[in-house]
Amino acid sequence: MIIITEPTATEEQIERIVTRVQEFGLEAEVSRGGSRVIVEVSGPSELVRDPRLSSMPGVEAVVPAATHYKLAAFEARGTASKVDICGVSIGGDAAVALICGPCSVESREQMLSIAHRVKDAGARILRGGAFKPRTSPYSFQGLQEEGLRFLAEARNETGLPIITEIMDARDLPIVERYADCLQIGARNMQNFSLLKEVGRSHLPVLLKRGFSATINELIMSAEYILSGGQEHVLLCERGIRTFETATRYTLDLTAVPILKAKTHLPVVVDPTHAVGLRAFIPQMALAAIAAGADAIMLEVHDSPELAKCDGEQALIPEMLSKLFPRLRAVANAIGRDL
Amino acid sequence: MIIITEPTATEEQIERIVTRVQEFGLEAEVSRGGSRVIVEVSGPSELVRDPRLSSMPGVEAVVPAATHYKLAAFEARGTASKVDICGVSIGGDAAVALICGPCSVESREQMLSIAHRVKDAGARILRGGAFKPRTSPYSFQGLQEEGLRFLAEARNETGLPIITEIMDARDLPIVERYADCLQIGARNMQNFSLLKEVGRSHLPVLLKRGFSATINELIMSAEYILSGGQEHVLLCERGIRTFETATRYTLDLTAVPILKAKTHLPVVVDPTHAVGLRAFIPQMALAAIAAGADAIMLEVHDSPELAKCDGEQALIPEMLSKLFPRLRAVANAIGRDL
Amino acid sequence: MIIITEPTATEEQIERIVTRVQEFGLEAEVSRGGSRVIVEVSGPSELVRDPRLSSMPGVEAVVPAATHYKLAAFEARGTASKVDICGVSIGGDAAVALICGPCSVESREQMLSIAHRVKDAGARILRGGAFKPRTSPYSFQGLQEEGLRFLAEARNETGLPIITEIMDARDLPIVERYADCLQIGARNMQNFSLLKEVGRSHLPVLLKRGFSATINELIMSAEYILSGGQEHVLLCERGIRTFETATRYTLDLTAVPILKAKTHLPVVVDPTHAVGLRAFIPQMALAAIAAGADAIMLEVHDSPELAKCDGEQALIPEMLSKLFPRLRAVANAIGRDL
Amino acid sequence: MIIITEPTATEEQIERIVTRVQEFGLEAEVSRGGSRVIVEVSGPSELVRDPRLSSMPGVEAVVPAATHYKLAAFEARGTASKVDICGVSIGGDAAVALICGPCSVESREQMLSIAHRVKDAGARILRGGAFKPRTSPYSFQGLQEEGLRFLAEARNETGLPIITEIMDARDLPIVERYADCLQIGARNMQNFSLLKEVGRSHLPVLLKRGFSATINELIMSAEYILSGGQEHVLLCERGIRTFETATRYTLDLTAVPILKAKTHLPVVVDPTHAVGLRAFIPQMALAAIAAGADAIMLEVHDSPELAKCDGEQALIPEMLSKLFPRLRAVANAIGRDL
Repeated sequence: MIIITEPTATEEQIERIVTRVQEFGLEAEVSRGGSRVIVEVSGPSELVRDPRLSSMPGVEAVVPAATHYKLAAFEARGTASKVDICGVSIGGDAAVALICGPCSVESREQMLSIAHRVKDAGARILRGGAFKPRTSPYSFQGLQEEGLRFLAEARNETGLPIITEIMDARDLPIVERYADCLQIGARNMQNFSLLKEVGRSHLPVLLKRGFSATINELIMSAEYILSGGQEHVLLCERGIRTFETATRYTLDLTAVPILKAKTHLPVVVDPTHAVGLRAFIPQMALAAIAAGADAIMLEVHDSPELAKCDGEQALIPEMLSKLFPRLRAVANAIGRDL
Repeated sequence: MIIITEPTATEEQIERIVTRVQEFGLEAEVSRGGSRVIVEVSGPSELVRDPRLSSMPGVEAVVPAATHYKLAAFEARGTASKVDICGVSIGGDAAVALICGPCSVESREQMLSIAHRVKDAGARILRGGAFKPRTSPYSFQGLQEEGLRFLAEARNETGLPIITEIMDARDLPIVERYADCLQIGARNMQNFSLLKEVGRSHLPVLLKRGFSATINELIMSAEYILSGGQEHVLLCERGIRTFETATRYTLDLTAVPILKAKTHLPVVVDPTHAVGLRAFIPQMALAAIAAGADAIMLEVHDSPELAKCDGEQALIPEMLSKLFPRLRAVANAIGRDL
Repeated sequence: MIIITEPTATEEQIERIVTRVQEFGLEAEVSRGGSRVIVEVSGPSELVRDPRLSSMPGVEAVVPAATHYKLAAFEARGTASKVDICGVSIGGDAAVALICGPCSVESREQMLSIAHRVKDAGARILRGGAFKPRTSPYSFQGLQEEGLRFLAEARNETGLPIITEIMDARDLPIVERYADCLQIGARNMQNFSLLKEVGRSHLPVLLKRGFSATINELIMSAEYILSGGQEHVLLCERGIRTFETATRYTLDLTAVPILKAKTHLPVVVDPTHAVGLRAFIPQMALAAIAAGADAIMLEVHDSPELAKCDGEQALIPEMLSKLFPRLRAVANAIGRDL
Repeated sequence: MIIITEPTATEEQIERIVTRVQEFGLEAEVSRGGSRVIVEVSGPSELVRDPRLSSMPGVEAVVPAATHYKLAAFEARGTASKVDICGVSIGGDAAVALICGPCSVESREQMLSIAHRVKDAGARILRGGAFKPRTSPYSFQGLQEEGLRFLAEARNETGLPIITEIMDARDLPIVERYADCLQIGARNMQNFSLLKEVGRSHLPVLLKRGFSATINELIMSAEYILSGGQEHVLLCERGIRTFETATRYTLDLTAVPILKAKTHLPVVVDPTHAVGLRAFIPQMALAAIAAGADAIMLEVHDSPELAKCDGEQALIPEMLSKLFPRLRAVANAIGRDL
């Protein structure tokens, strides 16, 4: 952190600033020469982030240190991490992975049928929601434990590992019993209690970006999970909220190369929820791979007009089968497998 | 819900649409006369909200029914509700209430000192955070139960009821032991597990708008709380995230008259977090009252440069004392007390 | 401007930075003492704003000087300016002014009728569009010079000065012939050619904020007008574009006190276009006055269901008459007249 | 347009609605059967778009007709258009084109040097700004006609056609004398006077999306140009304004497939201004091609640290040379040339 004083700051004000910095257990280095005095502050990062200095008399600006992430920062490992989900590697130089499945688990038949179809079409991980965050209390809230059982049965039949959302810390024991990877949904990206809890799980965690979270806040939420001891976190871009109404959210693909530069964590892109319109999802999946995504998450349903939620946006298995070779071609074009 | 068919829809497609509506346990009324056929759908609202019909062949548009809120809607009570917090009424024709206190409870001395000072300045409810949602895991996370005890002691000394944030459903028993009103923070506005939990509390709930939640989503989250049996919910506008960087958030005061027209719930405005700059908070508090707010929540600190978080934005007690008669004058100008 | 070097910057890099600054005709003052070197840059502001230094090796950050406005800044005059529109003063300690009229001039009868009615209801300036910026080329584009004539006739009958929009620099001579104040619409806030042109007019200019312009950009556009020699500029907040869909735009009332602190220019608020819903405009007009607005612009129509554009949002004269004493009461409550 | 009446609408209200529709020269078809009456309105589109009906008593909702674009709509031609810029085809099945050059024309030497370098690196069109829209009146405003001459000289030497921005309708004759394609900048996307003017030019027009314009508004602005008689319009996505601050704007790549589905116009992507950070531009150029862009516009500078504006974002020619084969590989992967 660098404190820049006003040109009119008095010596007494500068001394008071330095004293305060030291009271916080931090070190202050003072630079002089121009009309302003510059105070560089260093020390343990949890103290340095404190904004209380900017309100002191004589302070013109406080420039934060460039990075606040101890564990998520690329520099923390110096290389891109791979996360292993039951034998499927995501990140680093691993092949791009497809994560497919329905929005919600609706029935045993549906789950098994879709699982087989997405496996045949090239998916390597299965997704499906058993606990559903719904805007209205009167909407379908998910099959809960029964849904987890159907997911597990689909894994046993197909061999595809499963990823599913957890919404409440109290559900962790039950979700851990069935899932291979935990998902934190966009609405819970800053549910810090839940983040701390999944930070203690033995399962990897896929963290979705809140729809109005900055890239920096997404990384800070990953830092919460990592600081609990968890080593396996995937970041997922799924669209942010803007004024544009032609799409549900605006897919922020620039977040992909930025997250990969700032952190060592694998980056997943979920175009389905961002775009919300089936016809445009294939193009955005292709673009996500070109932008450097390590995995693509796609909603697939075999009977979209019956889907219990978000039916307009799911791909049907035939679309996925046709899309797969195109995704692979783009991955190859940028030097990756799929 | 109204389904509008395409001009080219076939009779077979229309029949299929009607059949599907009926399969869902809903009623369909068909209107004919122009090139399009219109199907009005009615039935229990939890079914009617299902979007799965818009993807059917022959459907041009599905126009949702105007209101989805059974319990929060103004029509549900036909009059503005008052919420009572230990004898302080908020809403309806009650006097506008000031809710003041520090962002975080930092120490016993701080809490008692501020409590006395805000009471003297005109506040009728005391606020303070014991559990703090912080973007970074390395920031100060609050004094937790110790903070609740200091709050309760401040209430006992001043007689001001206390409101404090709850972040985790598991903390409900302990927070209920001390607090007079529960606060759901902006980051948890769609933490549906927590909403359901506080819906079962005997304490009233102040629900803050998520910083990228629409007005409609805020009301739906209130509906979650109300649907748990809770009768006492206050809505709080605290700024939304926009491209503007001169302020932390953009205070959306138009939400005040809209929320009061759409719901029967009292509306609170928190200008402190939205504006983030002490100098402009008084004007926005005045504007909030003129817009019809039922209560104003203001962060007050007696030593802002030492505040453990958000120091730049807190009013000092002297500012509050000078602001109070101006707030009252504006309240009187629109026919209310303060 | 302050350049902060990286801790690892070499002496050679620092020298190169200083040399570059001097090549630009600027002065560099170097501060040393900590691990970073700080270079303060000063000189003519048009050079100092150049960002080309931030890409030089060794530079960690470039902190811009706090203010870029030479003519619009509050400090440029040290007191709030008053703008006189044919005898009606706006700004400073002048009474809050009401500016009312239809969105578009539609006919002679309409214009005269509304002019009389808004005058009776308390308006002191008349507004009406003769040149209309419409999203679609097929929408009504305004009566153009005929509309200006009807406006002028309404002024002659009522004595109310008139304000009307100019969209094209080539129309300036004709608009100047009729109008008392020029309006730059939100869509033209960064039409720099037009800004320069109205900067040379003898008429005052009301500059509307672009619906995605920052407060800083609004002031910079005012600076364009002022730098042409124009001395009389009014700033107008009229809503910004956000994700919220319950209103057309989000009225950013916090811009009012910020603009009044940063500039000496009077600030007008136009709640009509921001809110877009007649029922909520009175509350936002009241709030705008409480926030410190120097004038309120309101769309009024005597037959809203026939209005050629934006009919849903215009107040009817009866609403204005009832609103006027409430606006005055709030103005008085904060120590102003209306 | 479809008018839906309230369930409580009286026969008299419905009759009045129908009468009003007919007074506007439109036809009304009434559908009955359910609790609501539906009125379908048809006729010339410039009348049908009029919103004045929604404020009539008895009206619950007015659903606009799905498309308002007569000339820009895909259906207007039934196939993707190609735009020819001096022999370089863009759109349809043409090869993806690279449009490269500096932000501003700064000097003859700079322009010639960059022109040769971008040609060698694979660019097929040259860009450069002679008239610059700058937020501050004190920033460099461009070399104007001298800049156009340098551009023309660069075209003569390299054979690359040139595209340059026009900011003022009065500059059209001079810009037409030198340029091969006119560019309308983001800030002028709704400068309707300018749009009409370039609609009469014999040169094709590249229309940049305003940074807070919806996709629909972009198409409506293209419609303005087309309705002037112009047949050759290219649409350009260059980033929209959101809350995210890690990038200058948020590149909305989903706009690419949507624009290509809704219109017949070629779609260009300019990642430079959206991203604003050199390191992440290559990935976004790759992603834009994968999303279906017909051309990519890239800022290139051979001495970025000296660039008179926006230096941090320009690619250097070496980066472009290395990027070119990667862009071609992705284009080939989706079945296109480059």
